[in-house]
Amino acid sequence: MHLLEKYAPPLSSRPPEGRPLDLALKLEKPILHYVSPLTPIHFLLRAALVRPNHVAVTHPEARYQFTYAQWAMRILCLALALKNVPGWKRGDRVAVLSPNVPLIADAHYGVLAANGILAPLNHAAARVILVDHSVSHLLPETLPKEVTVVVSMDSGGQHADDAYEAFLMQGYNIWKAAQRPDQQPRDWSLLEQSVDELETCALCYTSGTTGRPKGVEYTYRGCYMGAIGNAMESDLNGDTVYLWVLPMFHCCGWTFPWAVTARMGTHYMLRQVDYAQIWDALLHSGVTHYSGAPTVQLGVVNHRQAQKLPHMVRVSVAASAPSATLLGRMESLNLQPVHVYGLTETYGPNNRRFIEPEWLHFDLDTRSRLQARQGHAMVTSDETRVVQPNETSSELIDVQRDGKQVGEIVMRGNVIMKGYYRDPDATKQATRGNYFHTGDLAVRHPGGEAQILDRGKDIIISGGENISSVMVEQELAAHPWVAESAVVARAHPQWVEAVQAFVILSPEGQQALHNLDDAAANAKLLDTLNAHCRNHMSKFAIPKWYSVVTELPKTSTGKIQKKVLRERLAKL
Amino acid sequence: MHLLEKYAPPLSSRPPEGRPLDLALKLEKPILHYVSPLTPIHFLLRAALVRPNHVAVTHPEARYQFTYAQWAMRILCLALALKNVPGWKRGDRVAVLSPNVPLIADAHYGVLAANGILAPLNHAAARVILVDHSVSHLLPETLPKEVTVVVSMDSGGQHADDAYEAFLMQGYNIWKAAQRPDQQPRDWSLLEQSVDELETCALCYTSGTTGRPKGVEYTYRGCYMGAIGNAMESDLNGDTVYLWVLPMFHCCGWTFPWAVTARMGTHYMLRQVDYAQIWDALLHSGVTHYSGAPTVQLGVVNHRQAQKLPHMVRVSVAASAPSATLLGRMESLNLQPVHVYGLTETYGPNNRRFIEPEWLHFDLDTRSRLQARQGHAMVTSDETRVVQPNETSSELIDVQRDGKQVGEIVMRGNVIMKGYYRDPDATKQATRGNYFHTGDLAVRHPGGEAQILDRGKDIIISGGENISSVMVEQELAAHPWVAESAVVARAHPQWVEAVQAFVILSPEGQQALHNLDDAAANAKLLDTLNAHCRNHMSKFAIPKWYSVVTELPKTSTGKIQKKVLRERLAKL
Repeated sequence: MHLLEKYAPPLSSRPPEGRPLDLALKLEKPILHYVSPLTPIHFLLRAALVRPNHVAVTHPEARYQFTYAQWAMRILCLALALKNVPGWKRGDRVAVLSPNVPLIADAHYGVLAANGILAPLNHAAARVILVDHSVSHLLPETLPKEVTVVVSMDSGGQHADDAYEAFLMQGYNIWKAAQRPDQQPRDWSLLEQSVDELETCALCYTSGTTGRPKGVEYTYRGCYMGAIGNAMESDLNGDTVYLWVLPMFHCCGWTFPWAVTARMGTHYMLRQVDYAQIWDALLHSGVTHYSGAPTVQLGVVNHRQAQKLPHMVRVSVAASAPSATLLGRMESLNLQPVHVYGLTETYGPNNRRFIEPEWLHFDLDTRSRLQARQGHAMVTSDETRVVQPNETSSELIDVQRDGKQVGEIVMRGNVIMKGYYRDPDATKQATRGNYFHTGDLAVRHPGGEAQILDRGKDIIISGGENISSVMVEQELAAHPWVAESAVVARAHPQWVEAVQAFVILSPEGQQALHNLDDAAANAKLLDTLNAHCRNHMSKFAIPKWYSVVTELPKTSTGKIQKKVLRERLAKL
Repeated sequence: MHLLEKYAPPLSSRPPEGRPLDLALKLEKPILHYVSPLTPIHFLLRAALVRPNHVAVTHPEARYQFTYAQWAMRILCLALALKNVPGWKRGDRVAVLSPNVPLIADAHYGVLAANGILAPLNHAAARVILVDHSVSHLLPETLPKEVTVVVSMDSGGQHADDAYEAFLMQGYNIWKAAQRPDQQPRDWSLLEQSVDELETCALCYTSGTTGRPKGVEYTYRGCYMGAIGNAMESDLNGDTVYLWVLPMFHCCGWTFPWAVTARMGTHYMLRQVDYAQIWDALLHSGVTHYSGAPTVQLGVVNHRQAQKLPHMVRVSVAASAPSATLLGRMESLNLQPVHVYGLTETYGPNNRRFIEPEWLHFDLDTRSRLQARQGHAMVTSDETRVVQPNETSSELIDVQRDGKQVGEIVMRGNVIMKGYYRDPDATKQATRGNYFHTGDLAVRHPGGEAQILDRGKDIIISGGENISSVMVEQELAAHPWVAESAVVARAHPQWVEAVQAFVILSPEGQQALHNLDDAAANAKLLDTLNAHCRNHMSKFAIPKWYSVVTELPKTSTGKIQKKVLRERLAKL
């Protein structure tokens, strides 16, 4: 990866000349020689020491990039500048509003190095706001005067009027002033950073199960262990080029800002999910890994540039699992999906589906059904349990591993949030019995893996029977006419609720229906899909209504907003 | 890996039928939902849950093997049997005297699961001694009556008279008696194991720098983090078949008993270092990784069965680095060496040499010289420093990174011993300034890597000049006539000490000298090797004397015993 030979980084992003960067991490007193606090900062410092000239962050669209030695200097300047902000104190929040450009990657290290708390997206009560120019209009016009706002032009120092670069230069000048020719070099040791590994270092916001936004507290230890888990489970290594498709503001990018650096790989930035740019990167820039929701995968595989890649690219897929159709299409392009599961409260992926090599002999449909499960602990995660739902007691009783008894997914361990920020009641309720309660309903199979049926609030209760919207969607997605679908509860005179499906047709489906008028098309769709459903589910779960749509409402992270669909139905 | 279809494990190594094994780890009170103690036991329990039918341990020579589900049951029985030993209490030592057979692999989990302390090799003050039949004669004839001795016949339960299997059956019977059909399953939760991650769980003995045997204390956290580091740096994965060439009693097998299991790979047992068996395993059993000293690598590459492997095998090489000749030979066979460095006090490998892909364009000699360095932190290790030698002060001053200034290698962090067992004075001296002092002398290069010159006591001082025995040996090994060499100080009338070399000739060297009488051969060898040395080292470092030998005295772990060579010279 040496794309941008002509780019010359600004002073604040150039390590000192003629001597190595001092990469000492200041440790808490009292220190023990056999314990170092677990912090992801360690990954950056090691990469800068061991692989100083390897490209750490590349941003081809904006024509700039940094090696690990440059990046470590840049982040030192960021941390020094943050600590220089009037009134700065340990634990102060730094909000970051940014697409996947180096600004937000810098913040994942610089804020921690300053012993601040990284708060992607949420600017409330922040001491400092780092904001990309493309989203600066989202800030309120007036902010309290003690808040420092720094707007980045994403120039990498190539334009004189980039306030973020000027901010970094403040840090550089502090560094410069501290240099004494007659002393040992002082770079990172200037920071006097100290780490208690169980302290909060990031706050990621989620609406969670209740809909009220809550700040999820991540610790240094959790970020470190989550990153190690993802690095191992995604088989990252020193050749890794990780394409930033997943928004980094979402669960701290599932800890990949740290995982990629733990293996001393390269971060490849992408300002927006643009499939032409994704294919350019896949084909021409040695990309080896990316992550995203199935809806993003659909955009990738259906793009006109889609073609079989000369090398295998590992793709982490969360939310729902790829359908047989999508799985087959991905494999034909040399995209290998890994199905992971988690929530904001679990640093993104906490567990996954392990796939045994012998399954390659199974047909696609069987494989996609097997691979759709999850709940196998990642190496640094504890066992994922499915327990009998109980909102009041802390006693946890496991469901039978029979693939039938429905329970709630609960998790604990080093890759679980510390709690909800300044909300002890919500924390206590969500972590009763010392397990985090996900609100997701699942069965557990004899092999130990779980299969998610639904978010608690998305389940459809028809004539007293529980229907998993996820399972109905998976069956619909298995039909060749269906590109994507979402099902929700709709009021029904006899059964109280019944299943309403929203369907985006595949090109094949469009072809099959294109000569018919609306009523005939709808009737044919209902006949065909329900005939398919009858083979795979109980009668009460078969959709009663179908609506063909061209798109589904989604969150910024690609999750379907079922609430919006339900509201749409309520207005009918 | 399904080598041994006909083997039926004994009851103590069969998970319960008709229900999954309960793999709950009992945790300390008070517990936090976001912290799980770091313990390698976790790796076994996860593998048994996620990959129950994958071969965990295979021992083809004795015709038995265990899947992860079977192994988890077997280890549960071992832990229950240990806790049942009269007078057993937390922290009791379990000595293991065993070659690389399943007994010692079992102990790496079973002793920890019983909250005992694993003490390979050293039986003093042990509550229990687990001993393989091949070495049981090494035990004293009389032992205190409170010591339980269990001799393993290495039968895997195939013979009725195997005391180790009978011991496991005691655990099985305890398990059996605890089963209640009307209750939740209780298997691992029976153990009531609890873990403080900073508690000692293993004692590995070393003579260290002083020659007096000392017990090196390993913690649960250290074993976990060391294993994670080795799993990542060796790129272990689920397809890994790790061939046990390195003695597992040495530094707990460099944490690989846990690292391989962390990736849910397979342990391939080998009773002794037998090169024919090693080649059989490499060629026919899908071996992907092994570790060993350079002397072992020489045995591997020079064996008559040596041939280019169809797949790449990753080899961790410690002690000295492979010479250009050995490196070239290994690469031609598809054996890829990784040069690691560590001591018993650092759980084996603590750092390594990272290799940049572009070096492949360099010639072998240049590459072997570059690769011979080390000191690049592994992912879970802290920076390795080289500091000005100072036996009395705790102040640590780094040497210049100029490849010239000699200092002592010091290390700290999660993969450093807790201390020397019951020896606070030695611990305090070895860890002054909160860094472990290795006693190894090195220079540091501008790229951050270290290059070991010598153990402190092996350095040769000739006419006031320091000579690194390691550097002289590396130059000798670079000559095609030399298979292996060792140099030590020998008394010299003028220079006080001068360099004496002991040389094992390569086949080429034997050929070159084979028609000459002893005196002529010696003269020709001296001329030829010294002409080679003159191009690569200062005049005072060139050996004054050569002795051709057919073997060099070595420890059980393959290190050359220079003390024995010096004693030999003293008798001249």
